[in-house]
Amino acid sequence: MNSQRREEIFEQAKIWVEEAGNIIEERINDELVIDTKTHANDLVTEMDKDIELFFANKIKEKYPTHLLLGEEGYGDDVQTLEGTIWIIDPIDGTKNFVHQKKNFAISVGIFHEGVGEIGFIYNVMADVLYSAKRNEGAYKNNVRMKPLNKEVNFEEAIFAFKHDLLCKSKDFDAELIEDFVNEIRGARYGGAAALEIAQVAEGIVDGYISKRLSPWDVAAGIVIMNEVGGIVNRSNSDSVNMLEKGTIVACNEVLSEKIFKYLKNWNRQEHSIKG
Amino acid sequence: MNSQRREEIFEQAKIWVEEAGNIIEERINDELVIDTKTHANDLVTEMDKDIELFFANKIKEKYPTHLLLGEEGYGDDVQTLEGTIWIIDPIDGTKNFVHQKKNFAISVGIFHEGVGEIGFIYNVMADVLYSAKRNEGAYKNNVRMKPLNKEVNFEEAIFAFKHDLLCKSKDFDAELIEDFVNEIRGARYGGAAALEIAQVAEGIVDGYISKRLSPWDVAAGIVIMNEVGGIVNRSNSDSVNMLEKGTIVACNEVLSEKIFKYLKNWNRQEHSIKG
Repeated sequence: MNSQRREEIFEQAKIWVEEAGNIIEERINDELVIDTKTHANDLVTEMDKDIELFFANKIKEKYPTHLLLGEEGYGDDVQTLEGTIWIIDPIDGTKNFVHQKKNFAISVGIFHEGVGEIGFIYNVMADVLYSAKRNEGAYKNNVRMKPLNKEVNFEEAIFAFKHDLLCKSKDFDAELIEDFVNEIRGARYGGAAALEIAQVAEGIVDGYISKRLSPWDVAAGIVIMNEVGGIVNRSNSDSVNMLEKGTIVACNEVLSEKIFKYLKNWNRQEHSIKG
Repeated sequence: MNSQRREEIFEQAKIWVEEAGNIIEERINDELVIDTKTHANDLVTEMDKDIELFFANKIKEKYPTHLLLGEEGYGDDVQTLEGTIWIIDPIDGTKNFVHQKKNFAISVGIFHEGVGEIGFIYNVMADVLYSAKRNEGAYKNNVRMKPLNKEVNFEEAIFAFKHDLLCKSKDFDAELIEDFVNEIRGARYGGAAALEIAQVAEGIVDGYISKRLSPWDVAAGIVIMNEVGGIVNRSNSDSVNMLEKGTIVACNEVLSEKIFKYLKNWNRQEHSIKG
């Protein structure tokens, strides 16, 4: 995608992200219509669906050749990464949306021929928009984000991850994460994957680890992290295939070496790191 | 303490809390002087000390008979709860202060003859001041906080606690917390005890559990929670003695019954709950 085209799509997407944010904000105190998806704690609200539909309609009208890969079912049946694909989580952090009416985000990543070109993570209620264009830097609102600090020691690092990484599991080694917690300075968890990654990009958390994320949880984050010199890979250090779910490790380049070694045997289903 | 006296001390304390907040905000981008206390991850900064000293000097001058129980050593050697005692954490969430330059709080609880009369939790960088006077309600900035919702089911609850509650320990049963995580809707951890309690008081998190907190971590939170009908006790349901460290459970009245039953055998050092 050439830079003029990227710029044009970026400006259009930004307008839609902000419009979607306004819709959410206006309806934030309405009574919620909550559904559960696969199980009782997998929530989805009318709002998740409405916002995805909002993007689906806008994209179809303005960019009829573009595809949408989304969480709530209004997207396309995306089988390859050819062409331009909008990868959208209308509300990342639905539990926070329901319980807190804040600490959730709209996450929009735009990929072209498999390459991340544009990313938006919009913390709606805080009115903080993280955005990035490939090779043109990442911004928090209108302030350019700095390259990640590479001077962080593992022992002084703060990582974000779900508490359940420490719970026994068939597929993952929880004891390894227990050792990890005992070595680092601190652990945090806010409840919205895209915002955790944004915090890593901002440098206020040193890394983020997740067992299983979908493309729409990470697409925007990958574009933003690329622009601050950060790494977002699978826990075995493989790069992320945007058509698959899987583990995620987001951190700076220097910490990543240590982390990938640490997590080498964490996921019993993934092959261990090369070399 | 009569209500006129409480009002007078409240207004004075509020001014000092806001002044202390301004000092921190003005110096937030200064280079940090960091010390470690008992171990490498027990941080204390010049700022923690300066802010405690600020309160110590103000209190000594204006209220020479009052005592200060503080974290950083500028307080008094408090042996009983007689009289009026200011229980202060100058920076609750020092790791967040150091790493994030936000998500920390000034916590000030004022107790008279062992009874919590006044509480302030000031999220400095967000400029959000939680405050309460005994029997006169709790406020978030100038908005009165509502009584806690008692309709929350355990299975739909979100709890805040450190990840290390899930790590093996001599004194605590980590497996019990693992079962707990698997039953509730979600777990969060932001890194500042006073702010976790404030979030429970606000109703955006349903409960907070900690292994070991000091009086200054909870004094203000107890006064605020009292005013929204919340409970702050030891995990064996004992009330909190403001001269001792110990476990903390903060939640609403209805959830508390279930939680105290759940946590009955969690802390191997505490006696189990009565009856």
